[in-house]
Amino acid sequence: MTKIKKIDHIGIAVKNLDEAIKIWEGLGLKVDEIEEVPREKIRAAILHVGESRIELLEPTDENSAIAKFIAKRGEGIHHLALGVENIEEHMKDLKEKGYRLIYEEPKEGAGGARITFVHPKSTGGILLELCERKE
Amino acid sequence: MTKIKKIDHIGIAVKNLDEAIKIWEGLGLKVDEIEEVPREKIRAAILHVGESRIELLEPTDENSAIAKFIAKRGEGIHHLALGVENIEEHMKDLKEKGYRLIYEEPKEGAGGARITFVHPKSTGGILLELCERKE
Repeated sequence: MTKIKKIDHIGIAVKNLDEAIKIWEGLGLKVDEIEEVPREKIRAAILHVGESRIELLEPTDENSAIAKFIAKRGEGIHHLALGVENIEEHMKDLKEKGYRLIYEEPKEGAGGARITFVHPKSTGGILLELCERKE
Repeated sequence: MTKIKKIDHIGIAVKNLDEAIKIWEGLGLKVDEIEEVPREKIRAAILHVGESRIELLEPTDENSAIAKFIAKRGEGIHHLALGVENIEEHMKDLKEKGYRLIYEEPKEGAGGARITFVHPKSTGGILLELCERKE
């Protein structure tokens, strides 16, 4: 089992990115970048907070996972991402222990990170991302 | 507006603390302490991860906020807590901007922290804790 280094980010599903940015900047954070992620059909605003980030995720297509989440549960926290040192090794250990992974191989996420997700059925209801980032 | 220093913790509502601890230790984290918080009618397991913590919250009474949350929405992320430098000043700024706070004065939270919550109606659906901790 490799080390979990930190909370990498929290992904928050929002209907309207501009309104969400107003809310979170009003709370005292700052948007560092806005990124379009066509593969996920989202537009993301990244707000750094300490060693972690808050990612506001607005769907750009009604068939995206984020749009479906909002339709079903409303706006709110969509996933929690933990930063790991070596994602392949971590995934191998979790599979051996019986955790259900959504991608069998790491995929490329926003900002060039390598990611997978642990299924909510294995985590007590939380969509958990594992994320390895080059420092 | 005072500085937001970090993600202080993520509070996760769980039905059974022992089972939740098995899941999260299996994922690669470690329980650092278990705390009973009678005022909130919960038992909490604290797992440090980087500068933040994950708090697994098991209700000890069916009338607790956590028990009601689980009955309504199931297990999962209950709140997100941001660490601030000066909670009174931060609360004053947020009130002036029209954010709705759940406690008008800071209360004592787990581990001697001073806390309040911003209402989900002001944050786009997220129960947001503000938390000032003595270092």
